[in-house]
Amino acid sequence: MRIGFIGLGSMGVGMAGNLIKGGHALTVWNRSADAAKPLAELGAKVAATAAEAAAGADALHSMLANDAAVRQVILEGGVLDTLPQGAVHVNHATVSVALARELADAHERRGIGYVAAPVFGRPTVAAAGELNLVVSGKPDAVAKVQGLLELLARKVWPMGDDPVRATIVKIGGNFLIGAAIESMAEATTLTRAHGVSAKDFLAVMSGSLFASPIYQVYGGLIADETYSPAGFKMSLGFKDIGLARAAAEAERVPMPFASVIHDALLEALAAGDGELDWSAMARVAARRANLDDSQD
Amino acid sequence: MRIGFIGLGSMGVGMAGNLIKGGHALTVWNRSADAAKPLAELGAKVAATAAEAAAGADALHSMLANDAAVRQVILEGGVLDTLPQGAVHVNHATVSVALARELADAHERRGIGYVAAPVFGRPTVAAAGELNLVVSGKPDAVAKVQGLLELLARKVWPMGDDPVRATIVKIGGNFLIGAAIESMAEATTLTRAHGVSAKDFLAVMSGSLFASPIYQVYGGLIADETYSPAGFKMSLGFKDIGLARAAAEAERVPMPFASVIHDALLEALAAGDGELDWSAMARVAARRANLDDSQD
Amino acid sequence: MRIGFIGLGSMGVGMAGNLIKGGHALTVWNRSADAAKPLAELGAKVAATAAEAAAGADALHSMLANDAAVRQVILEGGVLDTLPQGAVHVNHATVSVALARELADAHERRGIGYVAAPVFGRPTVAAAGELNLVVSGKPDAVAKVQGLLELLARKVWPMGDDPVRATIVKIGGNFLIGAAIESMAEATTLTRAHGVSAKDFLAVMSGSLFASPIYQVYGGLIADETYSPAGFKMSLGFKDIGLARAAAEAERVPMPFASVIHDALLEALAAGDGELDWSAMARVAARRANLDDSQD
Amino acid sequence: MRIGFIGLGSMGVGMAGNLIKGGHALTVWNRSADAAKPLAELGAKVAATAAEAAAGADALHSMLANDAAVRQVILEGGVLDTLPQGAVHVNHATVSVALARELADAHERRGIGYVAAPVFGRPTVAAAGELNLVVSGKPDAVAKVQGLLELLARKVWPMGDDPVRATIVKIGGNFLIGAAIESMAEATTLTRAHGVSAKDFLAVMSGSLFASPIYQVYGGLIADETYSPAGFKMSLGFKDIGLARAAAEAERVPMPFASVIHDALLEALAAGDGELDWSAMARVAARRANLDDSQD
Repeated sequence: MRIGFIGLGSMGVGMAGNLIKGGHALTVWNRSADAAKPLAELGAKVAATAAEAAAGADALHSMLANDAAVRQVILEGGVLDTLPQGAVHVNHATVSVALARELADAHERRGIGYVAAPVFGRPTVAAAGELNLVVSGKPDAVAKVQGLLELLARKVWPMGDDPVRATIVKIGGNFLIGAAIESMAEATTLTRAHGVSAKDFLAVMSGSLFASPIYQVYGGLIADETYSPAGFKMSLGFKDIGLARAAAEAERVPMPFASVIHDALLEALAAGDGELDWSAMARVAARRANLDDSQD
Repeated sequence: MRIGFIGLGSMGVGMAGNLIKGGHALTVWNRSADAAKPLAELGAKVAATAAEAAAGADALHSMLANDAAVRQVILEGGVLDTLPQGAVHVNHATVSVALARELADAHERRGIGYVAAPVFGRPTVAAAGELNLVVSGKPDAVAKVQGLLELLARKVWPMGDDPVRATIVKIGGNFLIGAAIESMAEATTLTRAHGVSAKDFLAVMSGSLFASPIYQVYGGLIADETYSPAGFKMSLGFKDIGLARAAAEAERVPMPFASVIHDALLEALAAGDGELDWSAMARVAARRANLDDSQD
Repeated sequence: MRIGFIGLGSMGVGMAGNLIKGGHALTVWNRSADAAKPLAELGAKVAATAAEAAAGADALHSMLANDAAVRQVILEGGVLDTLPQGAVHVNHATVSVALARELADAHERRGIGYVAAPVFGRPTVAAAGELNLVVSGKPDAVAKVQGLLELLARKVWPMGDDPVRATIVKIGGNFLIGAAIESMAEATTLTRAHGVSAKDFLAVMSGSLFASPIYQVYGGLIADETYSPAGFKMSLGFKDIGLARAAAEAERVPMPFASVIHDALLEALAAGDGELDWSAMARVAARRANLDDSQD
Repeated sequence: MRIGFIGLGSMGVGMAGNLIKGGHALTVWNRSADAAKPLAELGAKVAATAAEAAAGADALHSMLANDAAVRQVILEGGVLDTLPQGAVHVNHATVSVALARELADAHERRGIGYVAAPVFGRPTVAAAGELNLVVSGKPDAVAKVQGLLELLARKVWPMGDDPVRATIVKIGGNFLIGAAIESMAEATTLTRAHGVSAKDFLAVMSGSLFASPIYQVYGGLIADETYSPAGFKMSLGFKDIGLARAAAEAERVPMPFASVIHDALLEALAAGDGELDWSAMARVAARRANLDDSQD
């Protein structure tokens, strides 16, 4: 298949690489051209514009940063004009429910298939082809790209026909991660105040009842206070909790935990911690209790 | 070893049974005598009072319901008068930090070893000898009972010398469970409002990023809405979150998530749901969004 | 002076009337023309468009519903093209901080004075010329309209040069009202649960420590449960708390009370109470405690 | 009438003085005897014990600090043994609902009248005889002391027969004060972040919509940042919000604002601000937004 790939950030570059390794011909594009180099070395063609990367493709994957980037590149960047009718666009970005709906409509009008396929996983997981992909879209569109998705994923989770479905699952999942972090932040502050270190407490938890990737990865960061370089920045966490809150507002869903996380993230941003990993919410909890930021 | 065992509720009966199967001679006591029968059939001696169960024992295990019961039976029930000097009392109950400290002092004054060994796990897990035990106490006291603890546990987690340490880990752990439930309650309300059932959403989460016992067990209850009979009652959850809040208050630790959980549990209790499993916090979240309690 | 007045809702109609009674020649416009009739009877000229109402005016007052209406009518409706250089536009609407800044810049570029003059008070207060006006803008612009403002107000509160200043005071004030309502909602639920009616409790409070318009007006509505017809609708309250939250987010200000109010309003909207007065937040508090909505 | 007065703190000393000035013979007692001197100079007899102050009295007033002091002095200090049958005890302290009920029962059993008469007002107000008193108790008991209460109060608010009623009104009122403080704390942080000082913002608010003692007194403290010496200490505010939360818990009333206030007070106590006036909650809000504690 002829495949376009747009958006070669730390996630996208690994994903595109796996498609190439799977035997596909890729035409790639990224806003800053440097990011395309490693893929060019693997044999990818480098396009000068997003629209050019899409031209004549059977499938177009995009992995862009946020609503604004998706709107600019996909809706306003001419991509839908160069993608052939009958092609399928696979959107891996985490976007708002409102934009997901708008994208679905815009593709439908052009006769282009649209598959929402947001991903769970960090860059190393993306590079290893071990992502969790939640996928929704019209069955024939999904069927066309199923083989591609499997090159990227440990598991492809089919979520039905409506692209909003995968989108809300991704948004709900990110909220769940934020809530797990704030939970660990508060719990470890409590145990520290009673003499048990975050490391000792979390070793028990993530080794028994909560033995899962999220508690192990983020619990490890909290235990070791390794918030920089960030795996996932505070400012991005703030954006994602904002997506959950916007989706909640649209359907009148009170989410008091989301409000607490929002306030903790604001407090971290106010303190200048926007570049730290969002597990540094544990610092906010510790400061409120007048514990040292650092446990040593 | 000669072992006393006090408190034969749904947890205690399985634990005592495992000590017997491990080859130990048990003298057991329970407030209502009926609960002792299955153990008597396994060869346990049945005492008429808690103090009698403790008399002459090398080790005394107790698995009582709450602070009030521990206070009444252990501190005011004569147990510390009949337990021989040098014996070790292993307290499996989840108690407050304040009581943990009081118990440690009272045992110390009598020359009796005191080991805090609260448990994570449900009755079936207790019966299978697969509990997670967090254990703290003076090293010689812990050493004396280490073999007994291993008969009860999938894993024994040593937490150090101070009995308060295991206590706060248990309290922090229960808070973490309550927070996971409220997280899933809010997230599933959000996805349901956008057309994705709790079952579909939680299947992804507990099968990937959150693949751990807590998310799988409680997520399963929320997905299936099987809140009755309760594995762990709302009213007990309320008590446990109260222990976290009391410990937080004592050391000046703000815990906004604990406050939200407290308010959700109060709302559930006000609605008459005190006998349901505490995962029915998902009902509170759904009602606030004006979704049906039931998804069908 | 020749004055234009745009926006003749329940507030604007009384305000415009007071300018006419003060001896000024008014040209008025409203989206639905019927609203202009009572003013035409007082001698006002009725314009066919907003731009026409502004044409040749010394001062233009506008009292529009929200950001969207202000953007459409003022920024996109040609008003800034017909208002003469040196004229002053007095904006009485409650708008976002972001829009206030955008408006100030747009007027500046056209050489038109811009005065932010949001109002506190209900329609009857507006009709009586007894509003509280918070006013900010360049001193010469404010000076030109000072006499007009005094026709509308019990008191004009000067807030300085920057239009954002009056805007944030208005937004902060509305948050304070929302917080007072939620406070009374929770407090009366507490006293009712202990046998003291909202009426009895609030009579004491609003007759002593809290003897002020907000507690007396909204306390009276809560005591009597007269939520319909609404003096200020739940849905408008939701919009105003949204302005506070947006302003807070922009400057990284955690506001946990605003989060609680947001969640209570969402719950009221989910229950279908959007048309009630926003003091019906007391119903949300009562329902959560499983008290009857109605006290009788 | 022969009157006993127990508890001569900053509030009690002024109240007792007003009873003397009203022409009554007082026997007074205070834990530390020095506090009685100014009253002795006004002609009061000084008793050696609380029980002695109560002996033979027609009416006994007490103004003690908290539940513990009331329990120790009144229930365990022999007062109910020396007060004559038919005498009336007027309790001015803010106590828990649970203790109010226990006190009512204990007095009933001894044939002593019991009137709950908690007060709103600061020491200067008490000295001026301008308190607001909320009063409940059996009608004949209240009637006997009505004249005394009027010597203390700007207004006596009758709340009915059950002593719990005045108690919960006082507790609800204190919660309302705490909520007003937190509201002003958040609102002024918001306006400060947008360039409007707390002083400028609160001058508008407490001069218009919120023109009442609470907003003027506490708003003034926040505007001027005069948190020390405290009119009402943070630690006492924490105790009072605790009474509201305990009363709410007893009757299953979720109070999310009370939870937020609790968390803010805990944060202030953790920061070592327990001796400041509780209006210093404004400092907590400012710190969370990374604004200077001090506005200058």
